[in-house]
Amino acid sequence: MYSLEQAQDLISEAVKNLKFTNEPVELYEPIHYVFSTGGKRIRPVMTIMSANLFTEDIEKAIKPALGLEIFHNFTLLHDDIMDEADVRRNAPTVHKKWNQNIAILSGDVMAILAYEYITSCRHEKLPDVIRVFNTTARQVCEGQQYDMNYETKNQVSVDDYLKMIEMKTSVLLAGCMEIGAIIGGAGERDAKLLSAFGRDIGMAFQIQDDLLDTYGNQEVFGKEIGGDIVSNKKTYLLIKAIENADSKQREALLKLFSVKTGNAEEKIRATKEIFNEMKIKDLTWELALKYFEDASKNLEKVNVPDEKKKGLRHMADLLLSREK
Amino acid sequence: MYSLEQAQDLISEAVKNLKFTNEPVELYEPIHYVFSTGGKRIRPVMTIMSANLFTEDIEKAIKPALGLEIFHNFTLLHDDIMDEADVRRNAPTVHKKWNQNIAILSGDVMAILAYEYITSCRHEKLPDVIRVFNTTARQVCEGQQYDMNYETKNQVSVDDYLKMIEMKTSVLLAGCMEIGAIIGGAGERDAKLLSAFGRDIGMAFQIQDDLLDTYGNQEVFGKEIGGDIVSNKKTYLLIKAIENADSKQREALLKLFSVKTGNAEEKIRATKEIFNEMKIKDLTWELALKYFEDASKNLEKVNVPDEKKKGLRHMADLLLSREK
Repeated sequence: MYSLEQAQDLISEAVKNLKFTNEPVELYEPIHYVFSTGGKRIRPVMTIMSANLFTEDIEKAIKPALGLEIFHNFTLLHDDIMDEADVRRNAPTVHKKWNQNIAILSGDVMAILAYEYITSCRHEKLPDVIRVFNTTARQVCEGQQYDMNYETKNQVSVDDYLKMIEMKTSVLLAGCMEIGAIIGGAGERDAKLLSAFGRDIGMAFQIQDDLLDTYGNQEVFGKEIGGDIVSNKKTYLLIKAIENADSKQREALLKLFSVKTGNAEEKIRATKEIFNEMKIKDLTWELALKYFEDASKNLEKVNVPDEKKKGLRHMADLLLSREK
Repeated sequence: MYSLEQAQDLISEAVKNLKFTNEPVELYEPIHYVFSTGGKRIRPVMTIMSANLFTEDIEKAIKPALGLEIFHNFTLLHDDIMDEADVRRNAPTVHKKWNQNIAILSGDVMAILAYEYITSCRHEKLPDVIRVFNTTARQVCEGQQYDMNYETKNQVSVDDYLKMIEMKTSVLLAGCMEIGAIIGGAGERDAKLLSAFGRDIGMAFQIQDDLLDTYGNQEVFGKEIGGDIVSNKKTYLLIKAIENADSKQREALLKLFSVKTGNAEEKIRATKEIFNEMKIKDLTWELALKYFEDASKNLEKVNVPDEKKKGLRHMADLLLSREK
C-alpha cells in the first residue's frame, strides 16, 4: 500500500518527467509552461490511490493518471481564454503570455495528449476506461457552458448551481476514481462506489472553495478574502442566501450585487453582515460536510480490507480541513 | 461491394441522422449548425470504402467514419476562430453567428464527440484504432501550427510547405483509410498501404486546391479566381515560383506580394504572367499527378481482388478531375 505522501511523491516525480519537446515549439512550449507553474495534482493522486485499492502494481495507472491531469489543465487553459483570466497559479495565463491562437491550439493538443496518456492503459481495460473518460470529458465541457450561462442569468437556483459544479468539477474527480479503480482491477460495483466517492469529494471541495473565499483566513488563503463578493460571483453562499432571504434581505443583497464598482471593503462587510444574519456560513459548511459524509459512506462500502482505505481517508480529511 | 455513390448515400443518410440535441443547447446547437451547412464528406466515405475492401459488413465502420467527420469539422471550427474567418460553406462561421467562447467550447465538445464515435468500434479493434487516431489528431494540430507559423515567415521552402499540408490535411485522409481498413479486418501491411494511399490523395487534393484557386474555371469554381494571390497566401504555386525564380522574377514576385491592398485584377494578371513564364501551372499539375500516381500504386499493392478497388479508384479519379 502506498501512503498519501508516497502517492503524491510518485505523481510529482512523474509530472516532472513529462516531456513536451515535440515540434513545432510554438505548440508544445505552452504545455510545458502550464506544467511548470505547479498545481495540487489531486486528480492523478486520486487515480493511483484508487487503483492501489485493488493492486500493488500501480505503475500501470500512472500514465492514465497523468492523462487526467493533462485533461484538467487543458480545461483550465481554454477556460482562462473564455473567462479572460490574466493569471493562473500566480503566473500569466497562456493566452496572455503568448496569444489566443496559441492558447486555443495548445489546448487542443493537450486534449489529444490526454487521450494518448489515458488510452495507454492495458488493452483489456481500454473499452471501460475510454467509455468513462468520454462521458466525463463531455460533462466537464457542459459544466463550463452552464457556468458561463449562469454568469448572465438573473436567477440561479441552488439545484442549478449544484448541478453545474457537479459537472464542471466533481465528475472529473469521479472519473479519476473510477478509471483508477478499473485499471486496478475493481469490479463494477466498487468502481461505481469510488466514482460516487470522487463526485462527493468534489462537491465538498467546491462548496468549501466558495466558503473559503468569503470566510477564509486571509494569511493562509493567499488570495484577498471576499474576491467573489467584489466580482459579483454567483457562489453557493450568495445563491443560498437569496433563496432563503426574506424580502428585505433579498432586496439588500440584489442591490449590493447590482453594482460593478464601488467600495469593495464596505460591500464585503455589508454582504457578510447579511450572510451572518442568515447563518450562511453554517449552512454552507453543513452542506460540504454532508457531501463529505456521503463520500465516506461510499468508501466504506468498497469491498477491500479497511486498512487499504487509509490513504484515501487521509486525503479526504486533508481536503476537508484545508484552509486554502 | 458498395459503389462510390452507394457509400456516399450511406454517409449522407448517417450524417442527416446525427442528433446533437443534448443540453445545454448553447453547446450543441452550433454543432448541429455546422453539420447543416454541408460538406463533401470525403473523409467518412473514404473510411467506409476502405473498410469495404475487407468486409461486406460496413455498418460497423459508420460510427467511426462519422467520428472522423466530426473531428474534421472540429478542426475547421477552431481554425476559423484562429484565422478570423467570417464565412465557411457560404454560411457565417460559428464564432460569427454566436460568439468566440461558444465556438471554443463547442469545438472542444466536438473533439470529445469525435472520440466517442471513433471509439465505438468493436473492442478487439480499439487499441489499433485509437493509436492511429491519437497520432493523426495530434499531427493535424501540428500542421495547423506550422500553417500559422508560415503566414508570418518570410521564406518557406517547398519541403516545408509539403510537410505542412501533409500534416494539416493529408494525415487525416491517411488516418481515415487506415482506421477503415483496421475496422474492416485488414492486416498491418494492407492498412499501411491504404494509409499511404490516403496521404497521397490528400497531397494531390491540396496541391490541386492551390492550382484551382489561380487557374480554375471561374464559373465552375464558385469562388473568385485569384483569391490566394490577392490575399498573399503562400500557396504551392508561389513557393515553387520563388524557389525557381531568377533574380528578376523573384524581385517582381516579392514586390507583388509585399502589398496588402491595390488593384486586385492587375496583381492577379502580373502574377500569372510570371507564373506562366515559369510554367508553374504545369509544374504544379505534375506534382499533383505524381502524388496521384503514388496513391494508385499503393492501392494496387493492397492484397484484395482488383474488382473490389473499383470504388476507391473511381473516387480518386473524380477528385483528380474536379474543377472545384
